Amino acid sequence: MSILVVGSVALDSIKTPFGEVKEALGGSAVYFSYAASFFSPVRVVAVVGKDFPEEHLKLLEDKGISVEGLEKVEGRTFRWTGSYENDMNSARTHSTELNVFQDFDPKIPAKYQNTPHVFLANIDPDLQLRVLEKMKKPKLIGCDTMNLWISTKPESLEKLLKKVDFFLLNEGEARQLTGITNLIKAGKDILKRGPKGVVIKKGEHGAILMTKKHFFLAPAYPVEAVLDPTGAGDCFAGGFFSSLARSGKYWDGTALRQSVIFGTLMASFNVESFSLERLKKVTPKEIRARFNTFRKHTRIPG
Amino acid sequence: MSILVVGSVALDSIKTPFGEVKEALGGSAVYFSYAASFFSPVRVVAVVGKDFPEEHLKLLEDKGISVEGLEKVEGRTFRWTGSYENDMNSARTHSTELNVFQDFDPKIPAKYQNTPHVFLANIDPDLQLRVLEKMKKPKLIGCDTMNLWISTKPESLEKLLKKVDFFLLNEGEARQLTGITNLIKAGKDILKRGPKGVVIKKGEHGAILMTKKHFFLAPAYPVEAVLDPTGAGDCFAGGFFSSLARSGKYWDGTALRQSVIFGTLMASFNVESFSLERLKKVTPKEIRARFNTFRKHTRIPG
Repeated sequence: MSILVVGSVALDSIKTPFGEVKEALGGSAVYFSYAASFFSPVRVVAVVGKDFPEEHLKLLEDKGISVEGLEKVEGRTFRWTGSYENDMNSARTHSTELNVFQDFDPKIPAKYQNTPHVFLANIDPDLQLRVLEKMKKPKLIGCDTMNLWISTKPESLEKLLKKVDFFLLNEGEARQLTGITNLIKAGKDILKRGPKGVVIKKGEHGAILMTKKHFFLAPAYPVEAVLDPTGAGDCFAGGFFSSLARSGKYWDGTALRQSVIFGTLMASFNVESFSLERLKKVTPKEIRARFNTFRKHTRIPG
Repeated sequence: MSILVVGSVALDSIKTPFGEVKEALGGSAVYFSYAASFFSPVRVVAVVGKDFPEEHLKLLEDKGISVEGLEKVEGRTFRWTGSYENDMNSARTHSTELNVFQDFDPKIPAKYQNTPHVFLANIDPDLQLRVLEKMKKPKLIGCDTMNLWISTKPESLEKLLKKVDFFLLNEGEARQLTGITNLIKAGKDILKRGPKGVVIKKGEHGAILMTKKHFFLAPAYPVEAVLDPTGAGDCFAGGFFSSLARSGKYWDGTALRQSVIFGTLMASFNVESFSLERLKKVTPKEIRARFNTFRKHTRIPG
């Protein structure tokens, strides 16, 4: 069953110790939708400028992603320039050109409004709320956020959290939002703020999933050659949310755990190259093989 | 089957956001042996001063730990004073008084020399090497180290690594030793230096075990109330090495994995209080219960 994702589409210029790309396809909606498309049909709502290359649009369409909600307006596409130092864990931003993203007012095409699963990738929480108002009773709502909104729009974020089923955030954001260092305590605190489930993403250290009934700890899939971590969190979200949507059993322990693992795996493929280069080559068979390897590497004999 | 451990015995004065202790029992040999004593008989080789409280000695003896190798010499016991800030992940050292530890020359009582399992807790690698020379063909040798020795005694450490079966170190040390950021690559690099197995301890993020044949990823047991992380790495080592010694199957996948988990669990108990306060109350039944909970929390359904 379909997923609608609202987020950013960007042209990223990135330098890591292992290479460099200029104006490569990126953005939360792009990484999310590409990773998610392996499990469920995806519809994208985002904005680009007149300069957005046709080939990027074609890449998404060829993957079966619906881009009818990808609005093209006068002006330049959102651009981000950043680099990673040796540790590859945190990006240094050199410049952020919001461009057409500055005045982004998400429009939901009529035929998208019934989409049963909605994922609000990282954008201004006021926009995330506005998107939800335009949707007709989605069955499952997920959202992500970032440090900027936690510090500048705490009230909007608080309002949003009462309306979503799953809230995904990274460990730094969980600590910032709650003021609690211990991640288990922070997760419990977040659950009290409204969402029925929370996933704390810990990058190379894995993820923690908590609902009122379930608790699941997963390491990250061990990747030896991390070329560029950009988009890993969005790919995690795409794999997780889309696998869960496909299962139809949103609160079932097996579906939840497998979905966390699929999130981890999609992120693991993504970091192996720049932009969508690695994901473009991933096959369902490869995902299944990595799933089996991962189970083997983490199994605790009783 | 018995384990001999050589390391430090200290009087620690520690402040964390959750409390404070003055001159509490600590040191790598103490934490290791107490955690290890739940699985196998333990013999300690270390040094203390004349000021070392009898009650501490009694605590170890009451747990069945052999302290015949715990030499008491003129002078003051090793003292460490440190504190932890909010994140509890790294200690700030206020003072280190080596005292009698400065001239520590480990003496192995005759009846200890046949001990089949030897663990060299964190001390000068030259001393670790000297201890090995005094032992009669141990079946299994493990060792730990610290950043200080990696930077000041690289040649001695290199020599030592060729003589041990298992090398345990934390993620920062693994990166420092190899110059490699990626922990999987760093682990493989360490295996090339001699040890048959390496365990990279990642604190609250778990551990990675690698041998030529096995690969195992484990998250850490989720502890909500971390009062004092001092000694967690030594308790991990104690649980791991001692459980492996008990199994007698040092290279068996099941034994290795279960031992990593027992290491994780002993560390999880330890951080719940200062000094040995929590470990003193742990029962085998509690360890088993936590083992089962942990398996449940990490299981990936196929």
